[in-house]
Amino acid sequence: MIIVLKPTATKADADEILNQIADSGLKPLYMPGVERTVLGAIGDERVLGKLHLESHPLVERVTPILTPYKLVSREMHPADTIVEIGGVPVGGKRFTVIAGPCAVESREQMLTTAQVVKAAGAHGLRGGAYKPRTSPYSFQGLGIEGLQILHDVSEIVRLPAVTEVVEVEDVAAVEQYAAAFQIGARNMQNFRMLKRLGQSRKPVILKRGMAALVDDLLLAAEYIVSEGNPNVILCERGIRTFETATRNTLDLSAIPHIKQHSHLPVIVDPSHGTGVREYVAPMAKAAAACGADGLMIEVHYNPKIALSDGQQSLNPEQFTQLMHDLRRFVEAAGREL
Amino acid sequence: MIIVLKPTATKADADEILNQIADSGLKPLYMPGVERTVLGAIGDERVLGKLHLESHPLVERVTPILTPYKLVSREMHPADTIVEIGGVPVGGKRFTVIAGPCAVESREQMLTTAQVVKAAGAHGLRGGAYKPRTSPYSFQGLGIEGLQILHDVSEIVRLPAVTEVVEVEDVAAVEQYAAAFQIGARNMQNFRMLKRLGQSRKPVILKRGMAALVDDLLLAAEYIVSEGNPNVILCERGIRTFETATRNTLDLSAIPHIKQHSHLPVIVDPSHGTGVREYVAPMAKAAAACGADGLMIEVHYNPKIALSDGQQSLNPEQFTQLMHDLRRFVEAAGREL
Amino acid sequence: MIIVLKPTATKADADEILNQIADSGLKPLYMPGVERTVLGAIGDERVLGKLHLESHPLVERVTPILTPYKLVSREMHPADTIVEIGGVPVGGKRFTVIAGPCAVESREQMLTTAQVVKAAGAHGLRGGAYKPRTSPYSFQGLGIEGLQILHDVSEIVRLPAVTEVVEVEDVAAVEQYAAAFQIGARNMQNFRMLKRLGQSRKPVILKRGMAALVDDLLLAAEYIVSEGNPNVILCERGIRTFETATRNTLDLSAIPHIKQHSHLPVIVDPSHGTGVREYVAPMAKAAAACGADGLMIEVHYNPKIALSDGQQSLNPEQFTQLMHDLRRFVEAAGREL
Amino acid sequence: MIIVLKPTATKADADEILNQIADSGLKPLYMPGVERTVLGAIGDERVLGKLHLESHPLVERVTPILTPYKLVSREMHPADTIVEIGGVPVGGKRFTVIAGPCAVESREQMLTTAQVVKAAGAHGLRGGAYKPRTSPYSFQGLGIEGLQILHDVSEIVRLPAVTEVVEVEDVAAVEQYAAAFQIGARNMQNFRMLKRLGQSRKPVILKRGMAALVDDLLLAAEYIVSEGNPNVILCERGIRTFETATRNTLDLSAIPHIKQHSHLPVIVDPSHGTGVREYVAPMAKAAAACGADGLMIEVHYNPKIALSDGQQSLNPEQFTQLMHDLRRFVEAAGREL
Repeated sequence: MIIVLKPTATKADADEILNQIADSGLKPLYMPGVERTVLGAIGDERVLGKLHLESHPLVERVTPILTPYKLVSREMHPADTIVEIGGVPVGGKRFTVIAGPCAVESREQMLTTAQVVKAAGAHGLRGGAYKPRTSPYSFQGLGIEGLQILHDVSEIVRLPAVTEVVEVEDVAAVEQYAAAFQIGARNMQNFRMLKRLGQSRKPVILKRGMAALVDDLLLAAEYIVSEGNPNVILCERGIRTFETATRNTLDLSAIPHIKQHSHLPVIVDPSHGTGVREYVAPMAKAAAACGADGLMIEVHYNPKIALSDGQQSLNPEQFTQLMHDLRRFVEAAGREL
Repeated sequence: MIIVLKPTATKADADEILNQIADSGLKPLYMPGVERTVLGAIGDERVLGKLHLESHPLVERVTPILTPYKLVSREMHPADTIVEIGGVPVGGKRFTVIAGPCAVESREQMLTTAQVVKAAGAHGLRGGAYKPRTSPYSFQGLGIEGLQILHDVSEIVRLPAVTEVVEVEDVAAVEQYAAAFQIGARNMQNFRMLKRLGQSRKPVILKRGMAALVDDLLLAAEYIVSEGNPNVILCERGIRTFETATRNTLDLSAIPHIKQHSHLPVIVDPSHGTGVREYVAPMAKAAAACGADGLMIEVHYNPKIALSDGQQSLNPEQFTQLMHDLRRFVEAAGREL
Repeated sequence: MIIVLKPTATKADADEILNQIADSGLKPLYMPGVERTVLGAIGDERVLGKLHLESHPLVERVTPILTPYKLVSREMHPADTIVEIGGVPVGGKRFTVIAGPCAVESREQMLTTAQVVKAAGAHGLRGGAYKPRTSPYSFQGLGIEGLQILHDVSEIVRLPAVTEVVEVEDVAAVEQYAAAFQIGARNMQNFRMLKRLGQSRKPVILKRGMAALVDDLLLAAEYIVSEGNPNVILCERGIRTFETATRNTLDLSAIPHIKQHSHLPVIVDPSHGTGVREYVAPMAKAAAACGADGLMIEVHYNPKIALSDGQQSLNPEQFTQLMHDLRRFVEAAGREL
Repeated sequence: MIIVLKPTATKADADEILNQIADSGLKPLYMPGVERTVLGAIGDERVLGKLHLESHPLVERVTPILTPYKLVSREMHPADTIVEIGGVPVGGKRFTVIAGPCAVESREQMLTTAQVVKAAGAHGLRGGAYKPRTSPYSFQGLGIEGLQILHDVSEIVRLPAVTEVVEVEDVAAVEQYAAAFQIGARNMQNFRMLKRLGQSRKPVILKRGMAALVDDLLLAAEYIVSEGNPNVILCERGIRTFETATRNTLDLSAIPHIKQHSHLPVIVDPSHGTGVREYVAPMAKAAAACGADGLMIEVHYNPKIALSDGQQSLNPEQFTQLMHDLRRFVEAAGREL
């Protein structure tokens, strides 16, 4: 850790901090300069958090040397992690596609759509039973009934089911009915939930928040892993920027960045990432090309009547075409669809 | 509502949609143009949400005429709403200052700080018992013990207490110990929580999310009010932008915008809004000048040893000075401190 | 154009505006509603710009129906435009790669690097003679001498040269020495320059500004085309967001959006787009996958000693490997490298 | 400067860099750690720019200790700088208001508006002769004729005139007719222009770019000052963020940040900063409250017919009222209007 002192700091101020560093078991370093005095702390600087040096009135700036996360970092664990969702691997050689409607609306809608995505070659099924909606006047999901429909349909078409959990009190129900938890963008920093899912062993698909740095996403994953659940799959789904041509700005550069800094698998959601049906297929191909481990895609058997996010859902023909076209990109990336 | 059709839409497509509009009880309008056909729907367009016209494959764009929120809008309720926290009014003539430490750390820390803010003229006391922290390795708050300390100190210094609730399961405890709920930026779209607090009658201070439009904030408030709790106080606390000189970018323009569009009171948190101790006082004065109804400010009796956010906490002298300087700005704005 | 009036507007106010619309040769529409009166104007609404209706004190909001650009829109010109740079087509079947150093530093550096990119299969050569630099203490480019080196090297390796023009007074010199102009992100809204280049017939590579909407980029292109130069190539190079893991956030969703709305070719610059050497190749492949017409890539024969942007430059081995790997992605996209 | 090496760097790599630092005349520091080796360079690190250490393949990160700007920093020059525009001081005790129309449209419009702002107490007159406009179909300004009108009106009402220069070739004309140059947001990083104005002695009002960090703004000012012109006035006018309720997000926190880090005066443009007439007065008061040295405000004698930016222009009554109301806030801030 590098600590830059304010110009007004004296040698005595520096010594006070250097002693604290030494007392924490790290090696302190004193680097007086003409314009600023700089202090260093060598060793596992994460223990310095409890000193709160950034609050010291004579500290100008604290710059960490190491990443703030540890368990999810590639340095701790150089090999890629493969997480299994109901027997389907995410990470490794396979490129995994999870598809289905935004929301479970009815048994018929769910079954029809599931049969479509299965036939087209998807490996997992998605569908939301609890829907966090910006407006109180929008459809809020079927709740437990939706979970049951999702579960039944998942068994019929033999695709493991993924669904969002929005509240700690729903964790047990979701755990019973689904093969994997999904944490939505709005809950990425719901730390109570992260800890609770860290106590499960079911895989967790963790979506990046709209205002979250990639480092924030990795710290959120660290919460889950540090509680004991290593089965975390990261998901890039777009961040909020000034551009309004798309619902969010899909940050695909996050994929190589995550691959360099973490061993966890990472998938891409081009449906929420763009919010525009016509842009889903191009961005799905781009995700495969830049090294993502899979996709999460919204498909509806009839987007025109979808109760949620219809404008970004593919219809059956579009999804089938995408799965066909995707193969060559996945193979160019050295993987299998 | 204005519906722009894609160039490929036919008269039959337009008629299908116009019939849906008419069936919903609104007056449909047909406006064929050279390059685009435009449809209109006159009446309370919020009922059109269920048609999901934005998902229609031949609809290019849907533009609402009215605001998506209703109960919190100034049009519904032209007069300013005044919300009382334990007898202290927020909104109206008074400019209200709520101050205290970021986190409750101990009885001594809380009491010392509370006495400071009381003596300096604050009207309410803040202090977090549950702390949502980006890193799992940071201090996470004292929980229920913190609530008890906050409550006791609040009684001793006779300042109503405000504290953050981070999980639905904590609502009952917070309701028992505090005079008002605070919903933090990360929970602004925790819709289950919004609904639960809508069933209380205790006031709710609702902080704007880091990636939230002002309209998203007003829709979140609408969730609470539509469940029956009219006692909502909005709080601007900065949004995430590319600028890194400050922790967030405090969007003070949101204050006149909210005042124009909503009847709810709105306060400003310059501590989180800037993240820099030296900028808190200037931004507090600016908040008073542009029409805010009050402030929420972090104060610690010794920021150097604060367990959370020390770098943005004022020390006792700084807070006392601010309360002194603030008076002239508050009076220039036609209010009382 | 849709004009929403404020609640306080009277029928007389509406009539005044409706008359102005009619006088402009468009068909006016009157849509009174319960909460708002809405006016419409049917026809080529771009002529309404001169009415400045958005400034009218009783107008709440003006929503255009049509895109603000016209000549560059796909509706005006449904077929893809192919622009030739010194005989090399951009757009159409070919996927075009323009490569070279950020800045021309010396004849030797330029020639060595040009031979590398030629051997690896690049179709065009880049190199900056005028360098806009954030700090006055950074290398500012060789100017006219750099142009001469670039030109000579371009002839030796037989690759057409592209270089940035930063000032109207340099246009003549650049026009003499280079096969195409490049307008950098900081100059995307240098309208005098756009008009000046619109009077040339040499192709212009127009880079998106860091704070520019895709629509702003298309309007900037409209400036050039409306002056008479149809040879514009758009270039996505990242926008400024809160994410700091990369220098900019490469907005690849802009590619399908531009392809849907404009007939102009569009290429991607993953070097500036990410600012990180290791992320250039993944994002280059992603650009090919999502439908871009080519790439602009920074290569230096020895990035360690580059005078500008070395941290994002590929070395010869990395660029040669990328050109090899790229082929399969380009072919998967139905094109040729 | 702190240089963090990649885990793969050897002692020999470190030595190579340490020798380069020593050869540059700085004191090198070697800090080996368990996970990373960190190097330091003590002394005026700005000379290290020419080493391009950030491009070194074994360097993970370079963190400067000092600010990148020097001449404009408060450390170099602790006292506030006062810049005079035609005898009117900006900075120091006086709070300075420059007002006028967005664009010079005609002699009558300019004179009428100038008389209004003079009568209301403004200290300077603004008006654009060259207008950078996003669309080629918008009014582009009167050019040299506009400059003449501005100059004549300025003499009649005895207010010094400020006007934007958009191109190096116009500098001489603007210098002749105006008391101060204005550099618009789109030209903040037009480095040729910055250098050219650095050779003048007339004051320069430098507006922050829409995607510019405060540090970028200070570096742009450094360009002007390092060429010899110390008369720079900074201007905060909003940055581009995801919020669309306002045209830009006015970043008032930049004011205390600039005041802490630079000795240059800084004013605020709430007209462009918000883009909404009703929000101009509240934000003008907030600017005075948080320590700005003045304002630049758009006023039009009849905003309804303004050829440019009418929706954000105050009418005569609004401006007169603002000047009246502003006084108490300015005095609360310890200054004079």
